[in-house]
Amino acid sequence: MQLSAIYESVREDLVKVEKELELVRKVDFPWLAELLDYSLKSEGKVIRPALTLLSGKLYHYNLNTLVPMATATELLHVATLIHDDAIDKSPVRRGKPTVYKVWGEDKAVLLGDYLFAKAGELTTATQNIRVVKLFTQTLRIISTGELAQIFDAYNLEQTYHQYIQRISNKTAALFILAVESGAVLSEAPETSIKILNKYGYNLGIAFQIVDDILDFTGTEKEVGKPIGSDLAQGTLTLPSMLLLERYPEDNPVKRLFQNKGKQEEINLAIEQVRNSSIIEECYAVASDYCDKACRTLKLLPDNVGRQSLLEIANYIIRRKK
Amino acid sequence: MQLSAIYESVREDLVKVEKELELVRKVDFPWLAELLDYSLKSEGKVIRPALTLLSGKLYHYNLNTLVPMATATELLHVATLIHDDAIDKSPVRRGKPTVYKVWGEDKAVLLGDYLFAKAGELTTATQNIRVVKLFTQTLRIISTGELAQIFDAYNLEQTYHQYIQRISNKTAALFILAVESGAVLSEAPETSIKILNKYGYNLGIAFQIVDDILDFTGTEKEVGKPIGSDLAQGTLTLPSMLLLERYPEDNPVKRLFQNKGKQEEINLAIEQVRNSSIIEECYAVASDYCDKACRTLKLLPDNVGRQSLLEIANYIIRRKK
Repeated sequence: MQLSAIYESVREDLVKVEKELELVRKVDFPWLAELLDYSLKSEGKVIRPALTLLSGKLYHYNLNTLVPMATATELLHVATLIHDDAIDKSPVRRGKPTVYKVWGEDKAVLLGDYLFAKAGELTTATQNIRVVKLFTQTLRIISTGELAQIFDAYNLEQTYHQYIQRISNKTAALFILAVESGAVLSEAPETSIKILNKYGYNLGIAFQIVDDILDFTGTEKEVGKPIGSDLAQGTLTLPSMLLLERYPEDNPVKRLFQNKGKQEEINLAIEQVRNSSIIEECYAVASDYCDKACRTLKLLPDNVGRQSLLEIANYIIRRKK
Repeated sequence: MQLSAIYESVREDLVKVEKELELVRKVDFPWLAELLDYSLKSEGKVIRPALTLLSGKLYHYNLNTLVPMATATELLHVATLIHDDAIDKSPVRRGKPTVYKVWGEDKAVLLGDYLFAKAGELTTATQNIRVVKLFTQTLRIISTGELAQIFDAYNLEQTYHQYIQRISNKTAALFILAVESGAVLSEAPETSIKILNKYGYNLGIAFQIVDDILDFTGTEKEVGKPIGSDLAQGTLTLPSMLLLERYPEDNPVKRLFQNKGKQEEINLAIEQVRNSSIIEECYAVASDYCDKACRTLKLLPDNVGRQSLLEIANYIIRRKK
């Protein structure tokens, strides 16, 4: 099933989010307008805004608050990507040069700050202090996850638990925000909010594991950035951790981390991962998280929103980009 | 009058802000704790938290909301400085190496993000959506001001109006947040909130003009960073604008901006500014703004809070750091 089909029930409302994003791009200051146009006119999957709207559909669907909140989740996502790219000095994202590459690190940092603020501002438009608090906590958690990733770069002594904790912070937190805010704004009962929180967590972990798999199995064209970029940054992910476990002695990841930046070791690691059962094992882990996400969801009232949330979980495993 | 004497009426409550900052530093993640300890244990003037508390003193003084808000203004200030230093590649601030210098650009960016989030979180602790909105707007305005400064770097064709607009965004916005949030949280009438907004604006502009003067007249020891750093970054400020006006042809600022980075031109510009009446003129402009700040303030009820706010305006003109 294509994403567009999954989004069917909120298609028109996603157009409203798109319109809200267009408003964000309308500013007096021409240089800023150029930066905003560049970074917000993208071919993103808009999964996070869709999650907010679909969660909102489970109870009292109120577009006055859900549309600004959904827009805020997308802006927060874009802002973190812009900062990530500046930090990693990544030249390409989603198939086009990054803000960092085109305008430099300084403007990328400030544009990210601007978008954090704008996202926060849209969140306050909900007039709901609980979701605003959730938003600020999420930004804090994401920053912690990113810091952990940088401090753990080139560290071979990482546990599976640390990995899950890190991706929980850097990725799942935003999925949780997206669904939980939708639930809160639609006045869902507390038990349902908790269920959606768990769904968001499991979905987010699965999403990131698939991301980490695609960094080994994808093509640059599909993924929109160079393959092997995690290893190039010294970031251990599930596939490379399993490769280290399998060959503890003679291992390209080990050599790469000990003598930073050798492209041939990255290529070798990719080849070894591809030619093993590691990818299958990683998909099994991701699928487990998706199954958990779906199982929890079944405790909620059955309606079109829930059906789409289930389909998103299935899509996430199958996606190639 | 020393700052400590001006702060007398809120001294104990500033200790509460200090305690709140200590709580912010207490995190599980040891590397983050180290970064937070380093950046929050500082010899800052804590003017912004004092402004929030003193504005709060004008009406219903409620420490439950004023202390987190005052802490948030300080965190927001620190976060913007950390990002600024990373962007400008500044090695020293307040007499000690910057986070950028010690830990690198990547960690400085993420630490700043973390502190923005933490500041936002503290703001939500007020349970007052209006001040949270004000907070997010302020972060957006500050980022816009910083972007304007970068985009206008090495541009000789800047007007006085543009300069005031830029420092209004990058500096006065935070002063406005500090006093306006204090007023809102103490349930001040709308007319008083507007008055404090004007006070914050005029105080902030005066503060930044004095900052820009000290970058010419100060000593590195007093100011805590190298003198002439604005010119080194290609930033035109009031003293250098007046110097350009005075000597439109043969001018060290002009030569510096045309052939970036010549230290001897910076030294020459500093010397020419110091040996002219420019500093006096700049202080006259700053004093005008301070006078405006004080005049507006006199429309508010006379109490210890108002008295201290008047004294802060006088202090700002006299300060050497």
